[in-house]
Parts: sequence; C-alpha cells; structure tokens
Amino acid sequence: MYNAKAFSAASATSPLASTTIVRRDPTDTDVQMEILFCGICHSDLHQARNEWSGAMPTVYPCVPGHEIVGRVTKIGSAVTKFKTGDLAAVGCMVDSDGTCPECKDGLEQFCPNLTLTYNFPDKHTGGVTYGGYSDSVVVDERFVLRVPTNLDLAGVAPLLCAGITTFSPLHHWGVTKGKKVGIVGLGGLGHMGVKFAHALGAHVVLFTTSPNKKEDALRLGADEVVISKNADEMAKHAGSFDFILDCVSAEHDMNALLGLLRRDGNLCLVGAPEKPLSIAAFGLLFGRRSLSGSPIGGIAETQEMLDFCGKHNITADVEVIPIQKVNEAYERLLKSDVKYRFSIDMASLKSA
Amino acid sequence: MYNAKAFSAASATSPLASTTIVRRDPTDTDVQMEILFCGICHSDLHQARNEWSGAMPTVYPCVPGHEIVGRVTKIGSAVTKFKTGDLAAVGCMVDSDGTCPECKDGLEQFCPNLTLTYNFPDKHTGGVTYGGYSDSVVVDERFVLRVPTNLDLAGVAPLLCAGITTFSPLHHWGVTKGKKVGIVGLGGLGHMGVKFAHALGAHVVLFTTSPNKKEDALRLGADEVVISKNADEMAKHAGSFDFILDCVSAEHDMNALLGLLRRDGNLCLVGAPEKPLSIAAFGLLFGRRSLSGSPIGGIAETQEMLDFCGKHNITADVEVIPIQKVNEAYERLLKSDVKYRFSIDMASLKSA
Repeated sequence: MYNAKAFSAASATSPLASTTIVRRDPTDTDVQMEILFCGICHSDLHQARNEWSGAMPTVYPCVPGHEIVGRVTKIGSAVTKFKTGDLAAVGCMVDSDGTCPECKDGLEQFCPNLTLTYNFPDKHTGGVTYGGYSDSVVVDERFVLRVPTNLDLAGVAPLLCAGITTFSPLHHWGVTKGKKVGIVGLGGLGHMGVKFAHALGAHVVLFTTSPNKKEDALRLGADEVVISKNADEMAKHAGSFDFILDCVSAEHDMNALLGLLRRDGNLCLVGAPEKPLSIAAFGLLFGRRSLSGSPIGGIAETQEMLDFCGKHNITADVEVIPIQKVNEAYERLLKSDVKYRFSIDMASLKSA
Repeated sequence: MYNAKAFSAASATSPLASTTIVRRDPTDTDVQMEILFCGICHSDLHQARNEWSGAMPTVYPCVPGHEIVGRVTKIGSAVTKFKTGDLAAVGCMVDSDGTCPECKDGLEQFCPNLTLTYNFPDKHTGGVTYGGYSDSVVVDERFVLRVPTNLDLAGVAPLLCAGITTFSPLHHWGVTKGKKVGIVGLGGLGHMGVKFAHALGAHVVLFTTSPNKKEDALRLGADEVVISKNADEMAKHAGSFDFILDCVSAEHDMNALLGLLRRDGNLCLVGAPEKPLSIAAFGLLFGRRSLSGSPIGGIAETQEMLDFCGKHNITADVEVIPIQKVNEAYERLLKSDVKYRFSIDMASLKSA
C-alpha cells in the first residue's frame, strides 16, 4: 500500500478538498499510472453530493473521477499490454468477474459483479474505490486502455466516459454513411455524439433549444441544426431519422422525438432524466419504433473508440482547469457553463 | 356496382343493424369473395362508437370487420393468385400505393397511402371502405391472402388481425428455440401470442393478473404462468427474458416488465394503452433494453403466418356467434368475457 494525493468530498455538503488516500501496490496483473488529466463528469457531482442516495449511496471520503488518462509508472509481472512510460487510460469500470456471459461477450458494463471506478466496494482494500481526482491509480490491466499518441491528452480524458457513452450506441445500432442521425442536446455527451456521428459518415442533425449553439454545432460536424422548440422545423423532419441519440438529462418531450423516426428507427437515451418519461404508445406502434437506453460500453469497444479517435483525430472540446477550481467547475456544470467538458490538469495537484 | 348485405352502425350510439351497402364490381385485378366468417376485433367497437374521433373520426354508416375469411366468387381477368371457389382471406388493409419504399420492402402496413379495410377513403366508390360484417367484399388480389385448407375457418378469421399482430413482432425480433419469451395478457391477442411463441419453439411465460387463467394458458402452450401482481414471482424472473410481447391495452406497470428483460431484451407493445406510458429511463439504460411497438404486419408476412398456421395447425380459440348477437358481443368484449375471440358466422346474415 502507498499514499496518493487526491481531492475528495468529506460529506454531501463539503466542497472537495485536498487529501491523502491509500492505493494498493500493483499486483501481478496491475498497471500503476500517474494521472495526467481527469475529466469532470456530471456523475462525479451527483456522487460527491450523494444525489443518488437511493441506488448508490456515497461513502465518504469520496474521490470522484472516471475519465482518466495518464502514463504507466509500474506494471505487475504478468502485465503484457503495457510497459512503463506508455500512455494509458481508465474509464468507468476497474473490474468485473470475467466469467459471466456478459464478460465473455466483451460487455463488462453489464457484468453483475462489476466494480465501478469510484464509490464501489474495493475487493483489494476492503474500502471503496477511489477515482481519478488523484495523482495515481492502480488498475487491473484488463481495464486499462491504450491511448493513441497523436491526441491532446486533456481532450482524451473525457473520451473515457462521454466518448464511449455516445460512441457505443452509435456503433451498436449501426450508424454509418447513408444514415440520418439526430443528436439531442449539445453538452458534454452531445458534442461527442456530433463528432462521432459525423466521423462515422452519417448525415447529422443537432437538436437544441438554444439558437446560439447553431454555429458551434456546425463547426463540430453537424450538417443541420434544428431548434426543437420550433414545431415547424421539427415537422419538416417527421419520420425521417434512422437513429436519434438523446443526450439530455433534463425533462423534455420524448414523443416529439419519436415522431421524427422513420420505420424501425430507434431513439436511444444516454442522458437519464430523473422523472419517468411520458411515452405515447402510438408513437412506438406507428413505424415499429423503439425507445432504448445505453450505458457506457465494454472494454473492447472502448479501445475501438480510442483507436477510432486516433485515426479521425477526435478529442473532446475541453476547458482545462487546475484541481483547485473543481468546486467552481461543479457550480458552472450546473449552469451548463462549459464548452464542453472540464478536464483537470492533474499536475496542479502537486501544489494542492 | 352491386348491393351487398351488411351490419352497420348508423351513429356512435346506435347498435349495429342490418343494412344494404354498395360494393364495386370486380376490376381486372380484383377478387370478389363471399364472406364466411368475420372476427370481432376491439378496434371494430372503437370505430363503430367513434372512440377515435381525434385520429380517425368515424364516417357513418360504419361497417366494421377486418378479420375476414371466405370463398372466392369472382375474379378479375388479370387475377393470377386465385380462382373461383378458393378459400381466401382479408385483413386490416385493402390497398396501398405499391410504389413507396415501405411497399417495395413488403411492409405495406407502413405505406403512407395505405387504405384500411373499413372507415377509410375508398378510391373506387368515393365513399369510405366497408369491412367484413357483410356477405361479400371486393379487394385487389394483392391484399387477398391464401388460406390453408386444413384449418377451421371460424378460427382462421381472427388470424387476420389478432394473429398477424402477434406473429409479426415475434417473427421480426427473431423469437425461436432457446429464447425465453413473455406474453403479457391472455385475451384475443395474448392467446395467439402464446400459441405462436410456443410453436416457434420458445420457452413461453404468460403474465396475467388473473390466477384463474393459469390452466388455460398452459393448455394453449405456455410453459409457465406468472401472476404479475405478485412481486416475489416477478423477481424470480428479473433480467431473464429475451423478448416480451405486451398485449394489454389497460394501464399497467411497464417498468416492472422492463426489469424482466435481459441485456438487449425488447419489450414490444401491441396493445396500445390510451394514457401515456410512464417509463423510468434507468430501466432502459441498465441492460441496453428497448421498448418498442408493432402494428399488424405486411402482406407477405401475413401469408407466411397463415402458412405457418396451416403447418402447425394453429387457429384462434373462438366463440362463434350469429351476426344478430354482435351488439351483445360488444358488451361482453368490454368485460373481456370471451375465450378468446368472437367469430361471426356470416351465414346468419342471410336471415338478418
């Protein structure tokens, strides 16, 4: 065991502050990384503030962060995928049973014995897992990703959650050239959805309630922008989409979106509104449409996504901040005041 | 043009009564049939009573009926699929444009220029189409189905709507041997769903709120029956279903059903509750599940269903009634007092 620097929340109402945590020494199959950047995901805020007290109550101190990129500092004797000095990344998961049908299908995100990167029982330490707001982390190599060397690392970090969360459904449901794809919402997830759908060759339409996001959406790769409050604009696209990726967590009209799908079209949620959705059955029946959801992605698919990003030179658009500004960043996140993801330069932790 | 006997509703509040309607003389591509049996679908009641006044207001007189089986009495000069004396059947559709992408894919049910079997603009007569509560009908041969000769005709009639409505989604979503399939509700649709899922080789679980339906469900082909109000029974099946066909139109808990699906499982609605469904987004996200809907089926698939029924000796379980009892049957339908579909013996119309 060794001490690592970190930023943690001491309670649901405490601001995050500098602390020292204990990490395990790498086992034979572990990779130890120096963390260079960690993205800020809205989940970090939910967890730090115990906003999921029902399903996933927070254990304090809580060290959030599951968009981790860094450099390998040590490897276990059985590690084959990495050597010291390699770039490496870790996302939302750090372990799974490896034996269930989901794991065997390379879909570890559905493993019933999954270990999430923070606030999850840690079988090594007996406590909970600590995330990426830290100077280092130790993870089994099965859950460590290779990082293309041509990408800006600050912008790579958010690929590990925002990236795979949007790439996975686009990939799983066969988005490709010739498909008409909608992306709903231009935030941390949505801006990645636009970039991926564009790079996959689709005709991309961004739906937003904010007219002032139009220019940016076009820059990011959208072919068209529709102001979703404008019924006339929406009507022009009725029954025309193969796939719509809904990245909005706030309450919004799902039935209007379902009406935009063509026959056999699919509306996939990656944002998760807290309140139940109100769905008109006829919107599904007419057109044999589907409403679905998708959580992150498996390890093999995450690697595929990172390789795809290397090939297409895709990273998240980030605002780089020092760890000392993380509490301020949380407040700005609540106002959607970021284009489009915060990435913490973890070098700042040295002076914290 | 010629006169045909029929039963029609004169207004939303009138009981159905004997009347005379005008049918077109068969064109070159038409098939004229003597109607032997017509099933009673809940849609017939909705339409006769103008309960869909918003989307599909009823034009009176209204002759319902879209589960039609009979014998060919006359064919147009260009008709190739039928000869006089053949058994034949007509379902929910009698025409489509034949040129759109949906028609070209054999999915006429999604054609934007579809003509439904009753209460739809009739391009031949200039009025509305009249359904199967009649002694004869004239339909373009593209929309006339061949009927296996080994089946009881009273039980064949409901295959044309209740049958294809349940067969199509089971078929489309690949239900086969080795799949675990749920059927929700044991009514006109549900009892067909059980028969088809069983004949397709699936492990079939019938969900019902009525313990007294258990025996019948097992007789019809269910392997297990779950009382959906019993949380313990439901919990035993959590995360285990590949596909669930929801045949219930009354309001019910969709989230409990979504929780029964395994990863990538699909809950498909064929009943259409009037009120919007209340769907918890997390039930879709965890497990990458889908909620979908499916309306009837295309002509090719309807023929495939009828051929499948011939091969597996499948018909609907029906209570045969004379047309004189149609109003009474409607009242019993509202109380779900039928096992499991009414089939009108149209010979009774001769004395009406």
